[in-house]
Amino acid sequence: MNPQVSIITLGVRNFARARRFYVEELGWPVDQEDHNWVCVLLGGGSTAFTLYPWDELAEDARVSPDGEGFRGVTLAYNVRSEKRVDEVLAEAEQAGASIVKQPEHTAWGGYSGYFADPEGYLWEVATGATKLPFAE
Amino acid sequence: MNPQVSIITLGVRNFARARRFYVEELGWPVDQEDHNWVCVLLGGGSTAFTLYPWDELAEDARVSPDGEGFRGVTLAYNVRSEKRVDEVLAEAEQAGASIVKQPEHTAWGGYSGYFADPEGYLWEVATGATKLPFAE
Repeated sequence: MNPQVSIITLGVRNFARARRFYVEELGWPVDQEDHNWVCVLLGGGSTAFTLYPWDELAEDARVSPDGEGFRGVTLAYNVRSEKRVDEVLAEAEQAGASIVKQPEHTAWGGYSGYFADPEGYLWEVATGATKLPFAE
Repeated sequence: MNPQVSIITLGVRNFARARRFYVEELGWPVDQEDHNWVCVLLGGGSTAFTLYPWDELAEDARVSPDGEGFRGVTLAYNVRSEKRVDEVLAEAEQAGASIVKQPEHTAWGGYSGYFADPEGYLWEVATGATKLPFAE
């Protein structure tokens, strides 16, 4: 098994709201979609990002849909300046996200904040990690 | 904000066990690491995959670490044949994963199964989705 992720799927309780956030507000281009599924190809082309109803995703994996609280997973968006961290967080908030952590300087010498998408998924927006892939 | 994920981070309750699964058993090459953090660069180079302690990840985002049950997120590994689906699931199981769903033919014409890594993160191993990025 190679170090690869073909698809990151977020199970969503309100599909229309989640689709609106990523596709309409953030403007991510749809590669493929169906009534209950939307797929965006991430930059680089090696990984897709999809939204699918929470209960149906659990059913697909044959696990219980019950779940609450911290989900253990975060996604990071790495940019080249503190100014861009502030701007991206503001853009996400404008699009309907909640700011979970205002950006601050970190112990590792960076600068980062977090937002939660309308479904509660946590995104870190960061700069300073120069050896990690930049999102822009 | 572009359609990009710089880093997928999985919060793990047993860091050593999770590192062993991905790095030692599956053989994913370490790009950078620290005592409580390991980073693998996924193929394509646009996204990194990191493991970090569950409670510290929650603390970094300033959210409660309390959480249980279905996490809402799945990762998919898309291959070119049903034989490879079976083989990758067997490889993951051999490495310490649990098979959550034995592979079967799907309503969308594919063939897929799921495993859970030692921390319970769900991976779908699938074939048949020819328009999605292949992992191998």
